[in-house]
Amino acid sequence: MLKRTVFFVSESTGITAETLGHSLISQFEKTIDFNTVYMPYVNTAEKAQDLVERFDRVYEDEGYAPIVFATMAEPEIRVMLKRSRCLYIELFDTFIGILSKELGVNPSGEQGRTHGITNGDSYENRMSIINFAMTNDDGARLDKYDQADVILIGVSRSGKTPSCLYLAMHFGIRAANYPLTEEDFEQNKMPDVLLKHKDKLIALTIDPMRLNRIREERRPGSRYASLHRCQSEVRQALQFFMKHRLTVLDTTTHSIEEISSRIMSKIRSS
Amino acid sequence: MLKRTVFFVSESTGITAETLGHSLISQFEKTIDFNTVYMPYVNTAEKAQDLVERFDRVYEDEGYAPIVFATMAEPEIRVMLKRSRCLYIELFDTFIGILSKELGVNPSGEQGRTHGITNGDSYENRMSIINFAMTNDDGARLDKYDQADVILIGVSRSGKTPSCLYLAMHFGIRAANYPLTEEDFEQNKMPDVLLKHKDKLIALTIDPMRLNRIREERRPGSRYASLHRCQSEVRQALQFFMKHRLTVLDTTTHSIEEISSRIMSKIRSS
Repeated sequence: MLKRTVFFVSESTGITAETLGHSLISQFEKTIDFNTVYMPYVNTAEKAQDLVERFDRVYEDEGYAPIVFATMAEPEIRVMLKRSRCLYIELFDTFIGILSKELGVNPSGEQGRTHGITNGDSYENRMSIINFAMTNDDGARLDKYDQADVILIGVSRSGKTPSCLYLAMHFGIRAANYPLTEEDFEQNKMPDVLLKHKDKLIALTIDPMRLNRIREERRPGSRYASLHRCQSEVRQALQFFMKHRLTVLDTTTHSIEEISSRIMSKIRSS
Repeated sequence: MLKRTVFFVSESTGITAETLGHSLISQFEKTIDFNTVYMPYVNTAEKAQDLVERFDRVYEDEGYAPIVFATMAEPEIRVMLKRSRCLYIELFDTFIGILSKELGVNPSGEQGRTHGITNGDSYENRMSIINFAMTNDDGARLDKYDQADVILIGVSRSGKTPSCLYLAMHFGIRAANYPLTEEDFEQNKMPDVLLKHKDKLIALTIDPMRLNRIREERRPGSRYASLHRCQSEVRQALQFFMKHRLTVLDTTTHSIEEISSRIMSKIRSS
């Protein structure tokens, strides 16, 4: 398999360069083996010069110039990188001109701000939202559900916690979660506190085989991890979800980002 | 202030469109008040038609066509959106051609994969990394520090938890954190378990005034939240950091993304 080295470069966090760059190279991953290098805060001529020398070494070692995805506002550094031995792809500049013309306003030229967060821009607000996800994890605080934007339910290890954290960090959503346990299944009903907030519920399910693997890693050989118990819990949970006509998302086949985006489109459309 | 409506559109998660789109409009935020709309999973002609009608309504209400940042691989839907009343900016396509030529390979045409995560691609691995951050939060498990890639230290509410979560979710880094408390300051030394892992330590500091505001929100009127206590804790923590020559990052002036990126560049360079 052909190997190519890719750099994500920025004078700031580089998160934009990395996100778009990754999406782009994923289109070629079947044929090419990419070695990726993340280089944030290239904000002095010295750091840029080091990077140029590193590009040279890649070229000498691999026989191909590296591919560089950059968001670089500083003209001096940009020129240094552009002139070096690499395929320089400037992600930002391409679109700033179009936008500036459409808006009739010059860009501020400040380094990239606001990464990903679409709500709750202030530091305190973000902290409070992330804190909400942490303290309302795993059914810890049933009394706070009226403050939640969404409540994820599902069996233990079905992906509730990472989805809640992603919703909080990336979308600024107050997300709580509740684990359905054997106790709920024995009573054959969902807790009243959940039914009270039915509009906020989103259900997660998972393939019992994968659940088995995940739980085995956590508590090897336990009844909790057994395939039989995983199958039984997932089946009973699905019965609850169907009875109450909840939106069900499958974490077996979707990434955390996909689950979170689907939840976002449901929240925004309701 | 002029108002403009911006849509982030994708047939998949739309996270790439949203991340880059946000960075781009942030360059014009001082002059223009943007109303942003996030539209993932526009993957049928029906959904695209609804969106086109929504663009028309924006135009009628505001007198300006909306600005649309899209990553849309499906040609039929892309044409529908392009022809509608909007400024359509396709973020993906612009670069795929350049890459394809350089690599000598056609793009796979599969919808965008791999968002943000640069390490630990498998689901189980990601879960385990996020779980590590959750269970090693707030000094909960001092015995797991040998498994950590990094250990953040700082006073309570200095930003350790969100930074650890971001490092775990976005960069696939095993991040633990330890809160410096009055007990540590009274003993006038850092715990031995931290000194044992000195190479992994990164220190966070924060402006005492802001710390005071954050703590007041959590426990109003408490000694814990008092400005005097905040000033004293931050000062003593900084003395520890200087004594041991730790890398110190200030969460007052840097976002979670910036802190995490700086930590990443430190980890990668060491």
